[in-house]
Amino acid sequence: MQWKKVLAGVARAAAFLGLGIILGHSAIPKGANPPAPSASASQDLDPEILETIMGQLDASRIRENLRELSREPHLASSPRDEALVQLLLGRWRDPESGLDSAEASTYEVLLSFPSQEQPNHVAIVGPTGTILFSCRQSEENLTGEQGGPDVVPPYAAYAPPGTPQGLLVYANRGSEDDFKELQAQGIQLKGTIALTRYGGVGRGAKAVNAAKHEVAGVLVYTDPEDINDGRSLPNETFPHSWHLPPSGVERGSYYEYFGDPLTPYLPANPSSFRLDPATASGFPPIPIQPIGFEHAKVLLCNLQGPSAQADWQGALGCDYKLGPGFEPGGMFAGSQVNLSVHNRLELRNSSNVLGIIRGAVEPDRYVLYGNHRDSWVHGAVDPSSGTAVLLELSRVLGTLLKKGTWRPRRSIVFASWGAEEFGLIGSTEFTEEFFCKLQERAVAYINVDISVFANATLSARGTPPVQSVLFSAAKQIPAPGPGSLSIYDNWIRYFNRSQPLHLPSRSVGSLGAGSDYAPFIHFLGISSLDITYTYDQSKTSARTYPTYHTAFDTFGYVDTFVDPGFSSHRAVARTAGNVLLRLSDSLFLPLNVSDYSETLRSFLQDAQLYLEPLLEKHSISLGPLVTAVEKFEGAAVALGQRISALQKGTFDPLQVRMLNDQLMLLERAFLNPRAFPEERYYSHVLWAPHKSFMDTFPGLANACFRAIDTDPGSAAWDEVHRQLSIVVAALEGAAATLRPVADL
Amino acid sequence: MQWKKVLAGVARAAAFLGLGIILGHSAIPKGANPPAPSASASQDLDPEILETIMGQLDASRIRENLRELSREPHLASSPRDEALVQLLLGRWRDPESGLDSAEASTYEVLLSFPSQEQPNHVAIVGPTGTILFSCRQSEENLTGEQGGPDVVPPYAAYAPPGTPQGLLVYANRGSEDDFKELQAQGIQLKGTIALTRYGGVGRGAKAVNAAKHEVAGVLVYTDPEDINDGRSLPNETFPHSWHLPPSGVERGSYYEYFGDPLTPYLPANPSSFRLDPATASGFPPIPIQPIGFEHAKVLLCNLQGPSAQADWQGALGCDYKLGPGFEPGGMFAGSQVNLSVHNRLELRNSSNVLGIIRGAVEPDRYVLYGNHRDSWVHGAVDPSSGTAVLLELSRVLGTLLKKGTWRPRRSIVFASWGAEEFGLIGSTEFTEEFFCKLQERAVAYINVDISVFANATLSARGTPPVQSVLFSAAKQIPAPGPGSLSIYDNWIRYFNRSQPLHLPSRSVGSLGAGSDYAPFIHFLGISSLDITYTYDQSKTSARTYPTYHTAFDTFGYVDTFVDPGFSSHRAVARTAGNVLLRLSDSLFLPLNVSDYSETLRSFLQDAQLYLEPLLEKHSISLGPLVTAVEKFEGAAVALGQRISALQKGTFDPLQVRMLNDQLMLLERAFLNPRAFPEERYYSHVLWAPHKSFMDTFPGLANACFRAIDTDPGSAAWDEVHRQLSIVVAALEGAAATLRPVADL
Repeated sequence: MQWKKVLAGVARAAAFLGLGIILGHSAIPKGANPPAPSASASQDLDPEILETIMGQLDASRIRENLRELSREPHLASSPRDEALVQLLLGRWRDPESGLDSAEASTYEVLLSFPSQEQPNHVAIVGPTGTILFSCRQSEENLTGEQGGPDVVPPYAAYAPPGTPQGLLVYANRGSEDDFKELQAQGIQLKGTIALTRYGGVGRGAKAVNAAKHEVAGVLVYTDPEDINDGRSLPNETFPHSWHLPPSGVERGSYYEYFGDPLTPYLPANPSSFRLDPATASGFPPIPIQPIGFEHAKVLLCNLQGPSAQADWQGALGCDYKLGPGFEPGGMFAGSQVNLSVHNRLELRNSSNVLGIIRGAVEPDRYVLYGNHRDSWVHGAVDPSSGTAVLLELSRVLGTLLKKGTWRPRRSIVFASWGAEEFGLIGSTEFTEEFFCKLQERAVAYINVDISVFANATLSARGTPPVQSVLFSAAKQIPAPGPGSLSIYDNWIRYFNRSQPLHLPSRSVGSLGAGSDYAPFIHFLGISSLDITYTYDQSKTSARTYPTYHTAFDTFGYVDTFVDPGFSSHRAVARTAGNVLLRLSDSLFLPLNVSDYSETLRSFLQDAQLYLEPLLEKHSISLGPLVTAVEKFEGAAVALGQRISALQKGTFDPLQVRMLNDQLMLLERAFLNPRAFPEERYYSHVLWAPHKSFMDTFPGLANACFRAIDTDPGSAAWDEVHRQLSIVVAALEGAAATLRPVADL
Repeated sequence: MQWKKVLAGVARAAAFLGLGIILGHSAIPKGANPPAPSASASQDLDPEILETIMGQLDASRIRENLRELSREPHLASSPRDEALVQLLLGRWRDPESGLDSAEASTYEVLLSFPSQEQPNHVAIVGPTGTILFSCRQSEENLTGEQGGPDVVPPYAAYAPPGTPQGLLVYANRGSEDDFKELQAQGIQLKGTIALTRYGGVGRGAKAVNAAKHEVAGVLVYTDPEDINDGRSLPNETFPHSWHLPPSGVERGSYYEYFGDPLTPYLPANPSSFRLDPATASGFPPIPIQPIGFEHAKVLLCNLQGPSAQADWQGALGCDYKLGPGFEPGGMFAGSQVNLSVHNRLELRNSSNVLGIIRGAVEPDRYVLYGNHRDSWVHGAVDPSSGTAVLLELSRVLGTLLKKGTWRPRRSIVFASWGAEEFGLIGSTEFTEEFFCKLQERAVAYINVDISVFANATLSARGTPPVQSVLFSAAKQIPAPGPGSLSIYDNWIRYFNRSQPLHLPSRSVGSLGAGSDYAPFIHFLGISSLDITYTYDQSKTSARTYPTYHTAFDTFGYVDTFVDPGFSSHRAVARTAGNVLLRLSDSLFLPLNVSDYSETLRSFLQDAQLYLEPLLEKHSISLGPLVTAVEKFEGAAVALGQRISALQKGTFDPLQVRMLNDQLMLLERAFLNPRAFPEERYYSHVLWAPHKSFMDTFPGLANACFRAIDTDPGSAAWDEVHRQLSIVVAALEGAAATLRPVADL
């Protein structure tokens, strides 16, 4: 899971828990008696089968899956990653619990690895060239699992090689504003090494921002304040608690886009045209290397210069100063920091594994369910907690299938993606290869990457059409732990505690690009859902689980600290499985298009509140947008009424299919591949990345953000008007798809 | 009809008549007994209804339609154009012969008109500034119909205003090569007025090419050699024959792209963002004005300078010289030519009229049938011959509908487009407004613009999937005139005469951008067909019918010369109506995807023949393309076998729907909106404009054409490889959509 991009999505949504409108049509229709189609054509969700599946999902099997999946490090394209491909194929081809078919498909993709011969190295170099201090090159072997050749040393994937040396400065989170602040304080940045902490902006952005100020190299670490609620001592951290040990280092991809970097918009087949890596865009411009807070402390607590402002301070137990350079009276007086990065770009084979259950009635409608397989090290939480759930769910469904008890109405496609950690590469290549087929036929994509962060509550991100089916599922399943609340009621309880004063208009958070759902929603316009179990946000300020992307994310960590007993894993398996069954088996697709009306209305309100006064000054009217939202709302309500009427009367399977096509394809109506040409893959006019913090139409908001300091009549104001017209056209087009099909 | 762009398409296809594979599935299936669906769900094409419709299509009614439609000039957005909107609405809302519903929809589009106050003017100006000769500003009023305020004087729509004056040169057809040839001969072009003749390159290209050589203004005329088979005298031409009279002038749009020039990719609603006309691209860069050959002769036959080469000579009865300037001994010695253009850009309301017959079984599947309504003057041939057929066909179908005799399986959408002559504007705005809905649901688009050029043979352009349904229709209808051949057999006979030595791999020509099919096929990827009746190409070298876009294209012209008795009009009505019925009513869609295999194989062969040696030098292999074509062929054959098997056995309507979706959506799989970013609207990787004369994959051929003179490893050779990968990915993706739907 690419956490940095999730954060933007979460921050963007007003909140990610809450109430919503549950329309009746997502419940199991009863008493619908079609006139005389064959029995199979009217096949509908069977509540007994659903209950059977819920009952058979087994926590101990998930635990055993996780143990096996996380037994060894399985970095993308490593031998163990390939072994897991075989494991998945074996499970999905099992004669008694497998699927109809399973295949691996392999792409040749550009990955980035540290050199084994020349390890990356961070050192303090004295005035005479003597190395006074070296940061450790690997994490401390605390459990016997952090050593060995398969544990990739901490590094910044796609960071260019180089050996810059210079005075150290402290640059907080490495945002544009952070570097401007240093500049304002008169700190000379040219030729320095900037120490930054994780969070705030994306990984790669820290190097991009630094390079603009002629910084020579960047270090990044995780401050115990941001991950451990301040705890930093060995006896307070793993293996004594779930907190990050002092030597732990977050690995990650520093590539700006997603997908294989050399084959944008094309599947990365061996024969595909490839960009020259030397000219491909999106890589960090200067060397960057992550280190643990144990040694970040040595660097940071010896800096000279003015003290950093309060919100730049952390929990390393000293006053954070800005530099440049070390304290004159200290042990590193006059020293520089040397950063040696020897990463290499390599074309590697990376596989997806796909398993399919053929639909009995509508095999050409695909409900996709996926997670990545590759990890940074053992990856027990990320991603194996999700894969362990995936395997248990496919086992239960496969067993029913092989017994002849059940076959879904629509096809189910299970996917184990490769090379997600490097930038959602396997899933993106898959969407590039099957662009047309998926756009025509995919009902929805369900993503379960990290299935359990912690045991407090369900958390979900998704697009509005899948919100109500998730609610239906979550209401049907008991929450793990004591008490008798449903997952849904427990979720609301947490939501109310963490957001007591504000009810959001949308209850599932919006999708950024933090995991493999990104190409499905942004590139293909397929309604997507990402679910997980997580912690109580009122009790921690951690930006993710503490051992994220470190060598300490192991089976023992999960078994002891994250989810002893695996009841939260089972809860996620049940929730995701329940959603999957409803989408694959319901005669009427449980996609509630009216939930998009809420989103649009909310976006419109923010546009009216924050942008309208500005737009009026430039003679740009929001009137057409208001009209378009109203048309959408009207069409959505009317469609809901038609569905209800049809459910009460008699109908034939073709009528249902036509309505379902309207529901399935609504999300596609928001795609415009020409809307944001500079944003690779982003075509969905409602969910493109935000450059502002307004929760409104992103193209319009971003264009305003760029135009605000330009003169009336500028090209930037033209772009504002163009973006407004783009979103109006998309909403009008979407409303047109919801109206009765024979209306003009 | 925009003739210039048709020519490119026709030239590109190997030929436009011929034999093809007729697969059985396009015939009417018989004996298919679905198990127990309702009667309506298995509704199929009814041969008796088809025969009834064929019999009811009435030549005399088409004649009366044409008389009314062409009674007055009906330039786009003129009062008469609006009156025809009402006429169409009246017909389509008629209680006894109308459709289910009909609506007009209006866009605000940028058109271009000559100034009424300051007529455009071409004159020879003597050395002292005296006007020695003026070209006529309007055509001679030969039939009483060429006068009056509603006859727009000849002009070049979208040519900029200006009053350049300079020495005259003769530049043949105004191609890039033509101007290079003049330069090579040492003719000074700077500041001249270039006289060009129609043909060879597009209208606007003449001004674009001229401007590159600093020519100040351009004149264009139709040489009697190119339109009249050499005849040029008043008593040889209309009204004494169908040939173009000496004063006749072809009007036309000189805009380079299509669609409303100010709102590319957005519907031209009043509130839409509009480009600044001053910076919008695609307009001619310098003033240009068309004139009749009567006065072109005065200019051309008085030129001095070297004689033009043989293939630059025409039928004006003198030796064509190159200039610059007039013969020293002649009446215009020392004179210059003054060109005064006072065209104005105006935002105008232009309407489409849409009429719909709701499908009985699959109302969400649309078979579209359209033609434009606007003409340059009376437009009896272009476009009213098509609209007269459209109205007769809609009358016959509407009458059956209102009587309750018939309702199609799928919805039929009739369209009367506005402002086609200015650049396919109404149809393009329609596709922009309903992009998503049409991409999801349109089965095919049938275009009948000029229905009859002449009485010799059917002619068709289209994409491969609609070829076989056209053949089925054409075999069922007798050819007009004496004899007992079917339209199909007559077509083959003409084809064999004009192309005796070469059987083309495709029998329908490929679609350029000559009429309203362009946005459907190129922008939306909807299988399209354009049909007409035309002349015997072995008997004339005319590039179109003689009075094309002149004030002489009147009802009397058609009634006397083009199709006395209107039997060819009726033949087109029957053919188009037969195709329409088969597409709307057949249970199994009569789209033959295997005909795409032929095209791909033929494209591949040309690539192997002409490009492979070159590509190998640059280490670019066609191997992946060969594999992709083979995969497509295999998938198409297997799909055909599945359809045959299904037709023989028992099936339910959902199974048929799923197969039909595969057939309908195949064309979409060839779309890639990122393939040709510089070609506005062109997204279909197989039918983009060609810059070369090879009949192969256009992106690949064009990229080779650009790269051929560059060094190995250049960006241009990278683009060749990228284009190859784009077409490979499209073919692989298309093949994937044809495979069994539950295959991965």
